[in-house]
Amino acid sequence: MNKKIMLYDTTLRDGTQGDQITLSAEDKLRITHKLDELGFHYVEGGWPGSNPKDARFFEMARGMSFKNTQLTAFGSTRRTDTTPGDDPSIQALLETETDAVTIFGKSWDLHASEILGVTLAENLSMIEDTLSYLKKQGKEVIYDAEHFFDGYKHNPDYALSTVKAAIDGGADIIVLCDTNGGTLPHEVQGILEQVMPYITRPVGIHAHNDCGLALANSLQAVQLGISMVQGTINGYGERCGNVDLISVIGALQLKMDYQCIAPENATHLTELSRFVSEVANIPPLNQRPFVGKSAFAHKAGVHVSAIIKNPTAYEHLNPERVGNRRRVVVSDLSGKSNIEYKSEEMGIDLSANGNNSRKIVDKIKAMEDQGYQFDSAEGSLELLIKKETGQFEEPFTLESFRVTIEKNRSRPSSSQATIKISVAGVDEITAAEGDGPVNALDNALRKALNKFFPHIKEMGLVDFKVRVIDGSDATAAKVRVKIESRDSREIWSTIGVSEDIIEASWQALVDSFQYKLLKAINGE
Amino acid sequence: MNKKIMLYDTTLRDGTQGDQITLSAEDKLRITHKLDELGFHYVEGGWPGSNPKDARFFEMARGMSFKNTQLTAFGSTRRTDTTPGDDPSIQALLETETDAVTIFGKSWDLHASEILGVTLAENLSMIEDTLSYLKKQGKEVIYDAEHFFDGYKHNPDYALSTVKAAIDGGADIIVLCDTNGGTLPHEVQGILEQVMPYITRPVGIHAHNDCGLALANSLQAVQLGISMVQGTINGYGERCGNVDLISVIGALQLKMDYQCIAPENATHLTELSRFVSEVANIPPLNQRPFVGKSAFAHKAGVHVSAIIKNPTAYEHLNPERVGNRRRVVVSDLSGKSNIEYKSEEMGIDLSANGNNSRKIVDKIKAMEDQGYQFDSAEGSLELLIKKETGQFEEPFTLESFRVTIEKNRSRPSSSQATIKISVAGVDEITAAEGDGPVNALDNALRKALNKFFPHIKEMGLVDFKVRVIDGSDATAAKVRVKIESRDSREIWSTIGVSEDIIEASWQALVDSFQYKLLKAINGE
Repeated sequence: MNKKIMLYDTTLRDGTQGDQITLSAEDKLRITHKLDELGFHYVEGGWPGSNPKDARFFEMARGMSFKNTQLTAFGSTRRTDTTPGDDPSIQALLETETDAVTIFGKSWDLHASEILGVTLAENLSMIEDTLSYLKKQGKEVIYDAEHFFDGYKHNPDYALSTVKAAIDGGADIIVLCDTNGGTLPHEVQGILEQVMPYITRPVGIHAHNDCGLALANSLQAVQLGISMVQGTINGYGERCGNVDLISVIGALQLKMDYQCIAPENATHLTELSRFVSEVANIPPLNQRPFVGKSAFAHKAGVHVSAIIKNPTAYEHLNPERVGNRRRVVVSDLSGKSNIEYKSEEMGIDLSANGNNSRKIVDKIKAMEDQGYQFDSAEGSLELLIKKETGQFEEPFTLESFRVTIEKNRSRPSSSQATIKISVAGVDEITAAEGDGPVNALDNALRKALNKFFPHIKEMGLVDFKVRVIDGSDATAAKVRVKIESRDSREIWSTIGVSEDIIEASWQALVDSFQYKLLKAINGE
Repeated sequence: MNKKIMLYDTTLRDGTQGDQITLSAEDKLRITHKLDELGFHYVEGGWPGSNPKDARFFEMARGMSFKNTQLTAFGSTRRTDTTPGDDPSIQALLETETDAVTIFGKSWDLHASEILGVTLAENLSMIEDTLSYLKKQGKEVIYDAEHFFDGYKHNPDYALSTVKAAIDGGADIIVLCDTNGGTLPHEVQGILEQVMPYITRPVGIHAHNDCGLALANSLQAVQLGISMVQGTINGYGERCGNVDLISVIGALQLKMDYQCIAPENATHLTELSRFVSEVANIPPLNQRPFVGKSAFAHKAGVHVSAIIKNPTAYEHLNPERVGNRRRVVVSDLSGKSNIEYKSEEMGIDLSANGNNSRKIVDKIKAMEDQGYQFDSAEGSLELLIKKETGQFEEPFTLESFRVTIEKNRSRPSSSQATIKISVAGVDEITAAEGDGPVNALDNALRKALNKFFPHIKEMGLVDFKVRVIDGSDATAAKVRVKIESRDSREIWSTIGVSEDIIEASWQALVDSFQYKLLKAINGE
């Protein structure tokens, strides 16, 4: 029986302290449900005393029930000039009606005296009073000892006395926080070896990543007997972020024989990471351990030929165990084996119609020299290989288009596109408006194609990204447009490169529609 | 006297194995010079036997001299069917004429037999032969024991015998590699405690970040006596990347009293990180420890009011020590203190002309609700605050513009913009072409403004980014455009939000020019 470690997620509170991360109350609910499904033990919903959005989230969550997750509301110890019963933020905590609450208090003498401006003794009373009041209201109380490690380094006796005040107040769990993220693994070890014997409650850790060591610190703490890890999905959070709970699960559960979530749920970790990144509207980090798009990507020719023989040659874990997948990257460093692996994966015969694969590798390399990146536009890569090997005929051709955008002082801009295409010798000319030129073009092309290929209605565009390839030419520089599209079964990415953003968008748009039509031909 | 740790940078070789990372030979030279300036001990330039680009890099580097850096060429042990003297890749190493070479060999029995397909004994000869041949040519030889930790876990005796073969061959330094990145810090500790007594040469570590633990593993190894750390700038590299040497320096030199580079050079780490990210054309990671844009960013109101009292309250390190700076982030979570701090930083009087700051905070929050993000567009934020407080009058107004993009089958697209603006009651109408509609608009506006404000010639646009805010509406969704501009003294960022990419670009473009004109008014 593996030792269980409780997961405490604070994506909704500490995560949103991260630069550029904003979640609506509805976003927070969606994330909570997802974490509940996967079996996270605690989800910290927010700080109801600090902002109205968090109060609204708890109002919406009040009627809901969760299978696995205990929702907690976060707040600070009482103010110095009042009692918990009269402190409006403590009352806001009670109004959330969650069974569990999390209270943070000051462990570092500097914070008590300089930041709060209270005596060290008063800080201890604030901790004990607040917790004993909440315990009397029947709450499970988690105590976050803010800055515990820094506090202990400066004044160990006082830091420990704040934890004792929390225990005396009735804390159910004591969480030691490395709030500033400056503590190193050997320091975590040294301090925990000293303090663990004094903490007579279950202990947790809350680590920040300012030195890139939040995960190492959390694992170190688990090995020394703590039983709860606080963190966020994708490591979102203030400054360099909190520990990434996905990596915590990956390391503890898949490599160290601890149990965090039900074993079968680990295969949903990649999905969880992408879901939260989608909701938070933060581009996913390709290099993210375990779940990143590149976490099992192979680019060097020698690596690719090795993993074809035996994947453990260059993989520390089977990617399927975390719901991720192996990727072979096609790039200017790749050899024939990458292209061959890739085509096999796509089910394409590279030597169809008497073609030789060397010619295709050269063509791909030449396009990459011009700024195309096929590693993240596999839809376009598949089309390209099929066209080059005579396995795909373009189903439509462009005769011409014109897009006009107008704006004047009193009106927002308006866009119109006129397009003429031809399908098997039949011309179609039409026009459409749109929110911006790309949308107008998308609408016009869709309208023109619809006459010939009604099933394109099933597909939609999900995202488009623009990147300037050579910054030094600014708005005249080459741009790379990537479009992501989906139907009910698949998501695909396509690419266009040009000095003109509309031309590049057009290429990616055309590839996106052609990919859908290709799938239709194959009966998918 | 602090113990010295040698830094071995492999950004140019292992770094370029990273997904989406490509460096030209010229890029590689620029990075090498930068690393030399900062005092990196070794820079691995590439694998001349594996691709022509790397061979060209060494050709260009041959005549150059470096102050601090030893350039090394990377290659594998000899092929099984030949001698080092007849192996073309070993000869390619010699042709680079570098004083030092790095040879990797197999430590894991599985790799020798399954991947190389040689006997275990032959693998040992390949290692020893290759190294003794290179030593005879007068080279300093660094030996990378690929997969050492995995090899040792599976067959400790054989893994050690490969290292002994390297020592017998004359290796000057033995580098233990966690090639697959699956080794945990307590495993590094356990294995190093066993093997260090047997390795009679200086030892290095080469750690990958597949579990998010490359840094912790490297620090652990240093604490157990190794004297060289191999890694890359910004942690670029295959899969989840290599250890980030910037974090290595940050932790070892600024927090653990080791010496890696000259103490005064640590203040250039932020600049180094951004330089390499710029050359590699990879957007910098804001959350990156020590040097990320958000590494010392404060968003929560309580944190901001605390650091105003004492920065150590929420900072583990003075950001100036790594050349970074404190940032206060303005967001929907921010209170008045953030805006006040920010305005003070910008030198703006928030209560100028009888305004009250609460009104401005509300306006900023309302705009953020619509999709504006001022944390990364401080140029627009400054303009907004100044306009709202009557400290800045718009120097020009738009009367109207029209942009037309045309394309037909035989021609690439062409864009034209017509624009009419008015400056102090004087109208100016003009037109321009461009590579795409944004460039055409940029050119037309620049042409129109030039008549009134000739110093706008000094500024140029550096980058623009587009992000779809709500993916579910695809090409009709709201987009956020960010533009980065610079003159000889400053870089500034501006923002626009609209459902129309041209409208959003227009807003960001106008802010960009207005910011320049604002600076001119202030005599900057």
